[in-house]
Amino acid sequence: MLRLGPLAAAGRLLPAGPRLGLPCPSGGWVSLSRSRPPGPVGDRGLLARQVRAAAGSAGGGRSPALKTPKGTRDHPPAHVALRDRLLAAVVTCFKRHGAAAIDTPVLELRVPFARYLAMNKITNMKRYHVAKVYRRDNPATTRGRYREFYQCDFDIAGQFDPMIPDAECLKIVHEILSDLQLGDFIIKVNDRRILNGVFAVCGIPESKFITTCSTVDKLDKMPWEEVRSEMVGEKGLSPEAADHIGEYVQLHGGLDLIEQLLQDPKLSQNKLAKEGLGDMKLLFEYLTLFGITGKISFDLSLARGLDYYTGVIFEAVLLQPENDHVEEPVSVGSVAGGGRYDGLVGMFDPKGRKVPCVGVSIGIERIFSILEQRLKASGEKVRTTETQVLVTTPQKHLLAARLKLISELWDAGIKAEMLYKKDPKLLKQLQYCEDTGIPLAAIIGEQELTDGVVKLRDVATREEVDIPREKLVDEIRRRLEP
Amino acid sequence: MLRLGPLAAAGRLLPAGPRLGLPCPSGGWVSLSRSRPPGPVGDRGLLARQVRAAAGSAGGGRSPALKTPKGTRDHPPAHVALRDRLLAAVVTCFKRHGAAAIDTPVLELRVPFARYLAMNKITNMKRYHVAKVYRRDNPATTRGRYREFYQCDFDIAGQFDPMIPDAECLKIVHEILSDLQLGDFIIKVNDRRILNGVFAVCGIPESKFITTCSTVDKLDKMPWEEVRSEMVGEKGLSPEAADHIGEYVQLHGGLDLIEQLLQDPKLSQNKLAKEGLGDMKLLFEYLTLFGITGKISFDLSLARGLDYYTGVIFEAVLLQPENDHVEEPVSVGSVAGGGRYDGLVGMFDPKGRKVPCVGVSIGIERIFSILEQRLKASGEKVRTTETQVLVTTPQKHLLAARLKLISELWDAGIKAEMLYKKDPKLLKQLQYCEDTGIPLAAIIGEQELTDGVVKLRDVATREEVDIPREKLVDEIRRRLEP
Repeated sequence: MLRLGPLAAAGRLLPAGPRLGLPCPSGGWVSLSRSRPPGPVGDRGLLARQVRAAAGSAGGGRSPALKTPKGTRDHPPAHVALRDRLLAAVVTCFKRHGAAAIDTPVLELRVPFARYLAMNKITNMKRYHVAKVYRRDNPATTRGRYREFYQCDFDIAGQFDPMIPDAECLKIVHEILSDLQLGDFIIKVNDRRILNGVFAVCGIPESKFITTCSTVDKLDKMPWEEVRSEMVGEKGLSPEAADHIGEYVQLHGGLDLIEQLLQDPKLSQNKLAKEGLGDMKLLFEYLTLFGITGKISFDLSLARGLDYYTGVIFEAVLLQPENDHVEEPVSVGSVAGGGRYDGLVGMFDPKGRKVPCVGVSIGIERIFSILEQRLKASGEKVRTTETQVLVTTPQKHLLAARLKLISELWDAGIKAEMLYKKDPKLLKQLQYCEDTGIPLAAIIGEQELTDGVVKLRDVATREEVDIPREKLVDEIRRRLEP
Repeated sequence: MLRLGPLAAAGRLLPAGPRLGLPCPSGGWVSLSRSRPPGPVGDRGLLARQVRAAAGSAGGGRSPALKTPKGTRDHPPAHVALRDRLLAAVVTCFKRHGAAAIDTPVLELRVPFARYLAMNKITNMKRYHVAKVYRRDNPATTRGRYREFYQCDFDIAGQFDPMIPDAECLKIVHEILSDLQLGDFIIKVNDRRILNGVFAVCGIPESKFITTCSTVDKLDKMPWEEVRSEMVGEKGLSPEAADHIGEYVQLHGGLDLIEQLLQDPKLSQNKLAKEGLGDMKLLFEYLTLFGITGKISFDLSLARGLDYYTGVIFEAVLLQPENDHVEEPVSVGSVAGGGRYDGLVGMFDPKGRKVPCVGVSIGIERIFSILEQRLKASGEKVRTTETQVLVTTPQKHLLAARLKLISELWDAGIKAEMLYKKDPKLLKQLQYCEDTGIPLAAIIGEQELTDGVVKLRDVATREEVDIPREKLVDEIRRRLEP
């Protein structure tokens, strides 16, 4: 069997294309995928031409403009280190729930997961996809909207008993937000069938369900009065119908609210609403077994924009810490969302075969911003490397000793560095440890070579102990155990 | 501090652009980055329009064409699992050597790493970049050339003492190829200065160095006679000059060859060649300390195409196993390459400040193909998930017991699944374990509930033991320890 390590998340990209009316990237952009020749794979000429082009475009001694393309940015090591840890936490959760990974082309015509299921006639799959994707509308970098960003999806496809996979999606959101310690949060839950039932019993014609939905969805950002006037003014609902809707969509609660609505004389007569409420009750039973109902709110104002949802919908929001002045915690932003979409795969299947699906997207870019701001505020430094030991020498002419020792450490799987100077000063070497957060220094001098030992220095405490060379690897491992 | 796990590799993309004369992707491709609404981040309208477009284009009941875009493919779970382990092994090695990760935009004008260093005035950095990239020339999928592929780079930038970082790059290639157990390999090493010195002492005018270089580079694929006739015929070298070059570039060996060339009456008079040979000797000293000279061949035919190399160049090739009929092992393909490029960053710097660099690319797509073929030949199945336990019930009406138990396992960090049916048959549950490689089944029935135990079944041996519920997590961990 192969000796291979754990996971590295998949990448994915979306190129420019004409279909959405957005222009192809232009302005002389040149794709160049590598910072050195591809060697074994690919086209050497490509890079050669590039390099010459780069040199040429500098013209009479002028260098090319040193900037990243519009709407993009570099991610320096501290960014990448934080982001990679964040993505790893999310992927760890997805794997804990038994998901496999698929990687669909970024040059994708439509909704890749649905197309993948239909094309491969897969009726049953639990998968995740963590990838960089590409936005083609106008970047608004001041508002944190970049062309390139990450996306984390988890989906369960298949014909199963009601609400079991749906409950697992909510459990996953709960686990991820708890793990990341982002602060208090709430997961709002609703069901498209309940919303449609509400609209029906309020006398809204079916043709206006979707547009009414999108107005209801604004209730988290504007007060009911404004939502009501949009319904009446823009959407053309009668004031009575709007008021009637208002009585429902301002409700939120738990099992008690579900029971109350199941007894509601009008709603209980609507087939769709009744079905939705029955499933919502089942969902709450399952979430009670998972022990997470404390963070779940059945919220009739949650509508979510897209019209392909067919059942449960949900959205997780972070809450501002409660204080004396605020009665109820205030939402500061949505960080995950999803729902059930049972009709989508069938749209791709030549015979219209349906594959019920439920899934969740984690809003990784927003979570990243929050963590980044918090880190900045704390003044804490993120380590950008994982180096465990710096191999150092206290005297001159010991480069060979350092090279031999570091090679032993690498071969034993220890993460080790040394300075690339023949005769660096010890102080400079120790300073490098402090600057980059390396916890241990292995010091090898003439005396240590004679004695067959290595001096192991704890960078934080400055304590030094001689360790027999053959025991060094074990001692390093022992010290760095979590 | 954040509770976050280890690494997930970064993704990266290259969009279409006009500069290389390749067309923008067209034919109605629509970029769509998500299989469900973005929720918190992004543009709901986008997906809504997409879904409607998808539905619309199906026209009178016809479904949209079910295929991936030209030159691309889906990567099913077994692919992704194998690739992710492969990438993880490479990244583990890069981190073992203390590299940080940077992520440059894929919408990048030129050579991102060099641009990044120049733009940020960084004179000193060890970094890696593992990312999906995009090729815009014509895909040739039959030859394994797809539009989307992975790239793994490691680079050391900075003004250091000679050959120390260069030696580390070779050590890295050696570690990765050894770790992956791809079979026997050899790393060919040469130096641009030595090659240029050879050309000079053979009387080649400097204006023909680069073109002669690219002809020499073909010596690994064609015999000397053909290379010679290309030199004389196409490149216009004199037959004497070509023969003279031939005496040098057919040489390969180790320290002894370096010593021999240092004594060569002509070559030792050439300043560049002498410098290169001196450094090559130093390199071999360091590689001896690393204990890897057994796999290193100083090979004067190695030229590598690109003209930006300024010092050491290298390329790793896999060897066919020796047998009775073959005198020397035969190369079956290059899987890594790189070299020193001291001039590139200066081309981007407004003041032309140089930052010496040396780096290596791992040919991850070729390695992936080899591993994939080998796996296919062995008939071994790749597990696509990491699930440790399936939570099962032997009787009906025990869904609640399963949900409660699986929730406990998830919360303890155990990777667990259950079937999404209310009352699945035990046989079906155990079959699922065998089909997907889950090693353990936790069986909870009426008796177990009464006794406060869980029956833990080893799927391979079919042994079953009752474990007290409070000890279940520890027992699962104990059993699955590596």
